[in-house]
Amino acid sequence: MSLTFTLTELASLAGAKAVEGTCAGPLTGIAALAEATPADLSFLGNAKYAAAVATSRAGAILVPVAFASQPAAGQAFLRVDNPSYALALLCSVLEARLWPRPPAGVHASAVVAGSARVASSAHVGPLCVIGEGATVAAGSVLEAGCLIGAYATVGGDCWLKPGVTIADYCVVGARCRIQSGAVIGSDGFGYEPVNGEIQRIPQIGNVVLEDDVEVGANSTLDRARFSQTVVGRGTKIDNLVQIAHNVRIGRQCLITAQVGIAGSTTLGDHCVLGGQSGVAGHLTLGDRVKLGAQTGLFEDVPADGFMNGTPAVPFGLERRLVVLSRRLPELFKKVDSLAASLDSAKR
Amino acid sequence: MSLTFTLTELASLAGAKAVEGTCAGPLTGIAALAEATPADLSFLGNAKYAAAVATSRAGAILVPVAFASQPAAGQAFLRVDNPSYALALLCSVLEARLWPRPPAGVHASAVVAGSARVASSAHVGPLCVIGEGATVAAGSVLEAGCLIGAYATVGGDCWLKPGVTIADYCVVGARCRIQSGAVIGSDGFGYEPVNGEIQRIPQIGNVVLEDDVEVGANSTLDRARFSQTVVGRGTKIDNLVQIAHNVRIGRQCLITAQVGIAGSTTLGDHCVLGGQSGVAGHLTLGDRVKLGAQTGLFEDVPADGFMNGTPAVPFGLERRLVVLSRRLPELFKKVDSLAASLDSAKR
Amino acid sequence: MSLTFTLTELASLAGAKAVEGTCAGPLTGIAALAEATPADLSFLGNAKYAAAVATSRAGAILVPVAFASQPAAGQAFLRVDNPSYALALLCSVLEARLWPRPPAGVHASAVVAGSARVASSAHVGPLCVIGEGATVAAGSVLEAGCLIGAYATVGGDCWLKPGVTIADYCVVGARCRIQSGAVIGSDGFGYEPVNGEIQRIPQIGNVVLEDDVEVGANSTLDRARFSQTVVGRGTKIDNLVQIAHNVRIGRQCLITAQVGIAGSTTLGDHCVLGGQSGVAGHLTLGDRVKLGAQTGLFEDVPADGFMNGTPAVPFGLERRLVVLSRRLPELFKKVDSLAASLDSAKR
Repeated sequence: MSLTFTLTELASLAGAKAVEGTCAGPLTGIAALAEATPADLSFLGNAKYAAAVATSRAGAILVPVAFASQPAAGQAFLRVDNPSYALALLCSVLEARLWPRPPAGVHASAVVAGSARVASSAHVGPLCVIGEGATVAAGSVLEAGCLIGAYATVGGDCWLKPGVTIADYCVVGARCRIQSGAVIGSDGFGYEPVNGEIQRIPQIGNVVLEDDVEVGANSTLDRARFSQTVVGRGTKIDNLVQIAHNVRIGRQCLITAQVGIAGSTTLGDHCVLGGQSGVAGHLTLGDRVKLGAQTGLFEDVPADGFMNGTPAVPFGLERRLVVLSRRLPELFKKVDSLAASLDSAKR
Repeated sequence: MSLTFTLTELASLAGAKAVEGTCAGPLTGIAALAEATPADLSFLGNAKYAAAVATSRAGAILVPVAFASQPAAGQAFLRVDNPSYALALLCSVLEARLWPRPPAGVHASAVVAGSARVASSAHVGPLCVIGEGATVAAGSVLEAGCLIGAYATVGGDCWLKPGVTIADYCVVGARCRIQSGAVIGSDGFGYEPVNGEIQRIPQIGNVVLEDDVEVGANSTLDRARFSQTVVGRGTKIDNLVQIAHNVRIGRQCLITAQVGIAGSTTLGDHCVLGGQSGVAGHLTLGDRVKLGAQTGLFEDVPADGFMNGTPAVPFGLERRLVVLSRRLPELFKKVDSLAASLDSAKR
Repeated sequence: MSLTFTLTELASLAGAKAVEGTCAGPLTGIAALAEATPADLSFLGNAKYAAAVATSRAGAILVPVAFASQPAAGQAFLRVDNPSYALALLCSVLEARLWPRPPAGVHASAVVAGSARVASSAHVGPLCVIGEGATVAAGSVLEAGCLIGAYATVGGDCWLKPGVTIADYCVVGARCRIQSGAVIGSDGFGYEPVNGEIQRIPQIGNVVLEDDVEVGANSTLDRARFSQTVVGRGTKIDNLVQIAHNVRIGRQCLITAQVGIAGSTTLGDHCVLGGQSGVAGHLTLGDRVKLGAQTGLFEDVPADGFMNGTPAVPFGLERRLVVLSRRLPELFKKVDSLAASLDSAKR
């Protein structure tokens, strides 16, 4: 972070009810209690860390109004109703300063097709390419090096970080946020054997991101064989995630890093997929389904299911199987001992 | 999809033997029977879905010539010999219209080194970079933002989607198709400890893609330590796949998403690797080897082997072990019961 | 490789003590003994391959000074103290010729913000973008299409391959080497539910790569929620690796391909993580911790721990459990047999 704040500015931004003590200089960072330096703001977000306040070197600490302690010398307490909320508020303010919305307009180095429509309030950064018939709606930001394909649509108030690719004919809803290197609309992986040679099946559908979707860095979302690959409103996708053709993801799902979802699978709303988990093709997952990290799912899951392991089973069973599998050495010994015991009983 | 067809046009493109009924307006999409709207074409690809035809809202449906039913009001049947084949034919026609070959020539914004040779029939899109001594052969298409390294070669009739990187000295055969964000020729991951510090081993080989290879979005293929990393003719690689240095993949293989193949491993022809599977280094896999999804392979596999699980074992054994491992609770109980029974028998 | 050497040049570059025999023409490649052609240099790196020398078609072979054999007709032996070291020396020389440092200066097509500071000895390739307030230090090379964000810093003597993204405010140390498509500084994946909707938590920290760090192709390193995501000095990261926000990796670690490390986890120095392994969030791993390939780690590991499997257990235990789990069919039979035997004994 490269911003500098006085204690007074921070107190105002955080909505502090009271300020006690003072720090030596301006504050230039935010850090956990144990790691903070006198130039950092810290916070007591959870009562169980109260003891850490006494030993923290932080220049200023966000504490609850009723926190029964005083700041050290050269340290300030900012008393607030809810330190976590105050911190989130502060971070939002800082974010808006660190990433001010760039000015409207198209950079001179961008290449915009004659038939593309770019809203006058949008920002198109250096070396972007916008294809024939594409649309960029009002208030959207395309940072440097974004490649928008022919007849693609970027909705209003989106923010595309540097180097995002939105392929031809794909649709990005309003207020989507897409990280660098993400590819929306690569070809689906569809082939069929013809006389011993693998033949490509044309992939002529597209990808639709509904409103408020976020996509992480270097994730890949394949266009449908025909019709659409769909990511529902408000769903958030982490980095290096693979979404295959014709997948349909519901609303408000969380798809964490390195997850893979194979072709034509459907997810309900509010699903949560743990890191590196994989879902086979042509499955149906209900609402609020959860998968643990590294799970390999090969069957449908009804609403509210929580699956774990490879091949996945219900979470409770998986936990039990893990415990029992670690007792295999004991079980083998016990069976040997039983056999010997039975043998001697017979003699 | 942004194309509009009349029923008559579709009937002609699909080679329909007969048209029954008519639809209200033009057709603008393709969808499965259950999801189709009156603006969509649908198809009966498998006899088991015949009942779904009666309730489909599709404007037009591709059905077998002998299909014993009539279209609903406002709906047309296009009777064809083979609905799946007719659909594939139609999709190929649509693909050619959606993605017409861009015109020959180099976009004014591309940066082409003086010593590079670009065929006059090739298309080099906006903001591409072509390095010293590189070659782009006849009929190839490089969409926007492709980066072709020094002395790299792109064969004839290739299609590189936006944002592909072909690194220095790498060779891409004829008719290869490469998706956005793929990196062909990153450095191999080779290091050795020297006095407690990790020293890089130079990686001076290259990557060779033989003819008709396809590579998915954001996949990475490392150049060899020396000599070549090779992908055989007709092999198809999905998204986010990692191919390490000195790997040699045979012909007509299918490498699905998020697979990783470690250094110096060799695959035969017609291998199929399931999603998220991993293959350790310095292994040899014969022809037609198959790996299930998420498999972790740590040993050689002879031709026609089908391995599953981590660490991988033959598929049949893995299936049996999974079934038995789920019966562990029952087994533990049975052993306890046997012990009690033996104990009471002794007394 | 596109370089051509005479035998005399190679002998000089490899520091040969003696040259025996001669080869027909110039040498244009390096290959293993079994694969070499008369145009290749090969080497006897390990005494166990000595028999392969006799049948190798290599034009020239690096052999130990005392190797008790003579070259075949049309073949040369270059006798050296240590063939592996001689080969590494040679590869370094070849690498420097294949990748000569590009000339200092900023390519005319690059877009450099007015407030950015680019050292006069740095190379900024075609179509790079360098943001406001960014710094590129002396001797660094940015190949084509690199995107350097606002207020980002690239240290001295770095080498960024084509298409690297260093996001706003991130810091890259000296002598770092970053492969194509890597994203340093994507947003951390931080959300919290607010009234049933998923709200984004601002991610206002950055990523710091210390000196001599290397990052592979299409890997993603997320910026911290606040403070820093840190990769320690000399650590090497392979392709398609995911490093989440607030992770801290120690020095001289090896993180192999497709590994994922979840948020706020800390690694010590000299750790080695096998391919496709995953580490859950908020964990602490000591120095020299090792994880086998595809391991899923969900607990802290003290220094020198070696964990394997999912969920991970110590390596020795995991090996034992794998062996026993493969004996499950035998165990089930044995228990059935015991039950029958006990039953008959009772009657």
